[in-house]
Amino acid sequence: MKAERVIGVDVGGTKLLAGVVRPDGTVERSELEPTPEGSSEALLAALAALVGRLLDGGIGALGFGIPATIDQRTGTTGTAPNTPLSNLPLRDLLSERFGLPVVLENDANAACIAEWKIGAGRGTSHMAIFTLGTGVGGGVIVDGRPLRGALGAAGELGHLVVQLDGPPCQGNCTGHGHLESLASGLAAERAARELWGGRATGYDLVERAKAADAAALAALAEIGRILGIAMGSLVNVFNPELIAVGGGFGTAAAELLLQPAREALRREALAPGRDFVRVVAAELGSEAGMVGAGLVAFEAVDSGRAGIH
Amino acid sequence: MKAERVIGVDVGGTKLLAGVVRPDGTVERSELEPTPEGSSEALLAALAALVGRLLDGGIGALGFGIPATIDQRTGTTGTAPNTPLSNLPLRDLLSERFGLPVVLENDANAACIAEWKIGAGRGTSHMAIFTLGTGVGGGVIVDGRPLRGALGAAGELGHLVVQLDGPPCQGNCTGHGHLESLASGLAAERAARELWGGRATGYDLVERAKAADAAALAALAEIGRILGIAMGSLVNVFNPELIAVGGGFGTAAAELLLQPAREALRREALAPGRDFVRVVAAELGSEAGMVGAGLVAFEAVDSGRAGIH
Repeated sequence: MKAERVIGVDVGGTKLLAGVVRPDGTVERSELEPTPEGSSEALLAALAALVGRLLDGGIGALGFGIPATIDQRTGTTGTAPNTPLSNLPLRDLLSERFGLPVVLENDANAACIAEWKIGAGRGTSHMAIFTLGTGVGGGVIVDGRPLRGALGAAGELGHLVVQLDGPPCQGNCTGHGHLESLASGLAAERAARELWGGRATGYDLVERAKAADAAALAALAEIGRILGIAMGSLVNVFNPELIAVGGGFGTAAAELLLQPAREALRREALAPGRDFVRVVAAELGSEAGMVGAGLVAFEAVDSGRAGIH
Repeated sequence: MKAERVIGVDVGGTKLLAGVVRPDGTVERSELEPTPEGSSEALLAALAALVGRLLDGGIGALGFGIPATIDQRTGTTGTAPNTPLSNLPLRDLLSERFGLPVVLENDANAACIAEWKIGAGRGTSHMAIFTLGTGVGGGVIVDGRPLRGALGAAGELGHLVVQLDGPPCQGNCTGHGHLESLASGLAAERAARELWGGRATGYDLVERAKAADAAALAALAEIGRILGIAMGSLVNVFNPELIAVGGGFGTAAAELLLQPAREALRREALAPGRDFVRVVAAELGSEAGMVGAGLVAFEAVDSGRAGIH
């Protein structure tokens, strides 16, 4: 069975974005909602309302990009550091509610698939993305296929350890010194508040750096350097053609982060992979997760993997 | 063309091991030589003599496991931290010398392929190996295929950064705080000399720990803990079924390293991958690299990728 239109949904820590996606990744129409604070019930209700506004008879499947590890054996979420979605049988819950095949994908894996198919990674067979938002997500394409791992939980590049016994990780991750705690939008916010106190945000840090504030430039260069060190690990392990930097904070700060990241990568990575990889900004902006969730839904339906569970 | 027998060669920092390998990974006969110190010419001459002792008319190809990154576009070595093999057109040099198809593979990738086909990873589709010897090598199987990356240089798990701005890496790697500098046989030797001075080795550390020496146990537990932190990164990125620990030092110390490694992994890795992965000792001992190099030669000849370059 071939689907001609699906709904892709990007479930973010601050917003929910859903759209009707065509097989070529174009978006027919989309709807945006703030992510409700509080319980998983409130979040599921908001998702239901959002998808309901887009549903019509021609929709073949639903794809959800979720900021969590996912166990594809059961369609259950694992650790979800920044939303109340940990340990939920989300595929069954959503499939029952809509009576349609539902596919879950980690949100950053979804963004990676979108950038690979129609964004910064078009034409590559080996690429990775770091999505810098509230946390740090990741996705990897290996030899022309999305890296999913044994259970579907692979690609968590934000949980690369970069600092032995470093600061505790965010949310309900029990790790220490993970990239996520050192190079996320929250890390930028922390740096901004150390500089200016009060309610300064990571976006203030980016704005002041763009206005040539030396302290802001230094803080972002340090975040870029740490990101580049993690990219060095990634190059040593995956030998990719391309690394893209996306996500809300990552996209806003890309021009400030990429050069320090490239320099740190060159120091940490081995030849020949070090000299071969390109480090670029992602191209699809805030639509990457939604489009990728839609493309994953097509992939699952077309391969017969998606059913109503 | 189907080959029925190949020669697999493991080029180590201290020894060269070559054997006649059959398609099922069994070894007909093998030869061992110490690795000559000094120039790349001396090393190539020793390899030629070793292979010459095993060659006969029935050999279809030669596979070499090399402790270096490899650029498979040209059959050239990249960074070789522990032998004089950096930046050599090794595939052409060896192929011209023997008049046979030659396949190069990173030595730890070769060990990984052997453990996956006939060792600790039999039956898995997603696994990784850390080979702890003079340095730390690595190999990864993703979805039933060896991870090679865009150029064939992937799988360098010893060059995962685990300590931000940590000690300089070994050999000609320009990185800092890589796993290799903290959890290799050389790191164990450093720990032994801090404890007992003189010419103590990593193997002394293992022996004294097995005799319940508290300081030796603590030093090996710390190496195991750091190894487990890198395993946590690996689980977050690959979501494997199995992680094996091999190599000369890794095999000798396995019973002392694995439990601290498992504990650190549990702290650093996310569910569900954290609870799913098994951490075990490799099974093939010092033959893994040789057998794997042979299996890679079969794979290349059978798929038509190997020619005389």
